[in-house]
Amino acid sequence: MSYPKRKLIMVPGPTNISDRVMGAMLKPVINHRGEAFSALLKDVTEKGKYLFQTSHDVVILSSSGTGGVEAAVWNIIKPGDAAVVPVFGEFSERLAEMVEIAGGRAIRVRSEPGSVPSLEAVKKEIEASKALKAVFVVHNETSTGCTVPYLEEVTRAAKKRSAFMIIDAISSLGGYAIPVDRWGVDICITGSQKCLAAPPGLALLSLSNEAVEYVKKYQSPSRYFDLRRQLDYLARGETPFTPAIPLYYALDEALTMLQEERLEKRVERHTRLASRFYQALTGFGLELFAKEEFRSNTVIAALYPKATDDKEFRRSMSDEQDVVIAGGFGNLKGKVFRVGCMGEVNDGYVNRTLSALAVTLHKFGHGVDLQSVLN
Amino acid sequence: MSYPKRKLIMVPGPTNISDRVMGAMLKPVINHRGEAFSALLKDVTEKGKYLFQTSHDVVILSSSGTGGVEAAVWNIIKPGDAAVVPVFGEFSERLAEMVEIAGGRAIRVRSEPGSVPSLEAVKKEIEASKALKAVFVVHNETSTGCTVPYLEEVTRAAKKRSAFMIIDAISSLGGYAIPVDRWGVDICITGSQKCLAAPPGLALLSLSNEAVEYVKKYQSPSRYFDLRRQLDYLARGETPFTPAIPLYYALDEALTMLQEERLEKRVERHTRLASRFYQALTGFGLELFAKEEFRSNTVIAALYPKATDDKEFRRSMSDEQDVVIAGGFGNLKGKVFRVGCMGEVNDGYVNRTLSALAVTLHKFGHGVDLQSVLN
Repeated sequence: MSYPKRKLIMVPGPTNISDRVMGAMLKPVINHRGEAFSALLKDVTEKGKYLFQTSHDVVILSSSGTGGVEAAVWNIIKPGDAAVVPVFGEFSERLAEMVEIAGGRAIRVRSEPGSVPSLEAVKKEIEASKALKAVFVVHNETSTGCTVPYLEEVTRAAKKRSAFMIIDAISSLGGYAIPVDRWGVDICITGSQKCLAAPPGLALLSLSNEAVEYVKKYQSPSRYFDLRRQLDYLARGETPFTPAIPLYYALDEALTMLQEERLEKRVERHTRLASRFYQALTGFGLELFAKEEFRSNTVIAALYPKATDDKEFRRSMSDEQDVVIAGGFGNLKGKVFRVGCMGEVNDGYVNRTLSALAVTLHKFGHGVDLQSVLN
Repeated sequence: MSYPKRKLIMVPGPTNISDRVMGAMLKPVINHRGEAFSALLKDVTEKGKYLFQTSHDVVILSSSGTGGVEAAVWNIIKPGDAAVVPVFGEFSERLAEMVEIAGGRAIRVRSEPGSVPSLEAVKKEIEASKALKAVFVVHNETSTGCTVPYLEEVTRAAKKRSAFMIIDAISSLGGYAIPVDRWGVDICITGSQKCLAAPPGLALLSLSNEAVEYVKKYQSPSRYFDLRRQLDYLARGETPFTPAIPLYYALDEALTMLQEERLEKRVERHTRLASRFYQALTGFGLELFAKEEFRSNTVIAALYPKATDDKEFRRSMSDEQDVVIAGGFGNLKGKVFRVGCMGEVNDGYVNRTLSALAVTLHKFGHGVDLQSVLN
């Protein structure tokens, strides 16, 4: 392959990664069964606790975020268990399917496009469902740019039914704060390559005491994703299987940078920059996919002007402007583009993306108000 | 954590990694749903075909090698299926357990310590077993340093029963050649961090036409390890889930280096250097764990002299000699040490390891013949 050109990566993960985090991957190779790795693992999981605002265990898996979600499903759902799953896009549908593959019954609560299922509808199913084992909520639908605004309330409803509350926060945690201990979230999952601005390849999971006690009682059908085994090894400073060491180094550095910035400041930054995107795109005359109350801090989805060719548009953005954005997913393919507002995103990145979008929209025959970029 | 010191890593994976491969991780972050990643994926899987000597598909998973083994088990074994598994250490026992977790019946063929189950015993079970779906062979037991010398013959026996032949070659491929097409191996699995001298975090699987046809008929219980989905995405130049991009860059570079060296030369190098280890350790008066005919090219296991404290010995090697070796595994813990002879291992590494071992054995009260180092 030819050496790829360095471009501004504005897709909803992976994100641009700082030289500081990239450089951390070059630290010395170490034996994963020795003290140096134990020290690294302790460090990175401690910093993970800060991210999740938890005093309990944080497990790190050498897999994508989806692997983390699969671990949560396989370790919690037994055949016959029911799980309520708000479905409002590709990733929440995937989650419901995983529950079914594990032998569970997924009770889907659906919504209109551009929104999320209502809290009332979700609560109704939580209250009514028999054999309810868990509530699985995708916090932020990477496929639609819609965010669930009622995590705390739905957690309360789940706990009232003594069901496990499990949140897929892969594309949100860091751009949003989820205080898992305070809210009583049992498992929260995120990925290294989104708001943490580390390379892809690691999943992080927080586990409540109840979740730990439960998973310790069973052997998971997946050995690789067996959280009991993960916890046993974690207690002695190891991982059950060879960890992706350079990615651990990078995540450790990325989490150090999160601590330096502080979580609340990172959330503020994501919120402010996302609203810059929303304001400018509206100023361009584009229609946003998500209704205002569900608009994500981290994934911005906008409808293309009529008769815009998605592939050509994004090729022009990438080839001529060196800015990489994403297309739509599933039934939104060709209809929307998506911009990631994640990780080390800053005003400069937003300016560069908006300027490129303005010029490209112009090239494709759509007038834009350049003043919107500057607001 | 303090910055780890760079030491000579002589454990059986991860291995020392060349600057060239490490540096490849710093290539630009790219969108995993774009052309740059497709080009990378095509490149690395093509080079993977050279490694496996296959013209068929090679799947790469963002997981450790164990994840690759789990993928093979979950995609082949259905409840009630029988699988013959020669068991001669920790990793082959793990494999048998995975077959059982998947609902299969594992027919274990065991052996004496320091050896592998006899070809006759394995063939007998292959011929006699009802509902035989597969034969799973760990080629090289990382836990004992014993290698199966009859892969081709056992593959023939499996094919005669129309059973799938599946080889865990995680710690061997590259140090040994396994021509999967010529022998008719259905799935062969290896890891990035052993004889390929790339960072840990990726598993590689070769798949025969028969294996592809079979896995395409079923949905695997694991979505993350669903080979059907992996193959569907591979056909369009993508991975189903976000890939660990820096590790792909590194593996691509490591496989380029394999092509430059040529597989047969790499096998020769591993064979020659392993026999240097065996000769020298015998010269030191140590007893080798593996019987001569099963001694591995890639993992050398030797018994400690009586009353040697494993932890103290390896600490001394690491702290004073900057050479990191591994201890025993399972019931060999405390009794043996293991040396990895893998990846970019060369005469200099062997000299440095043997000199360090000589001095450390001397320190622990055991006379050694230094001439053995020089042979």
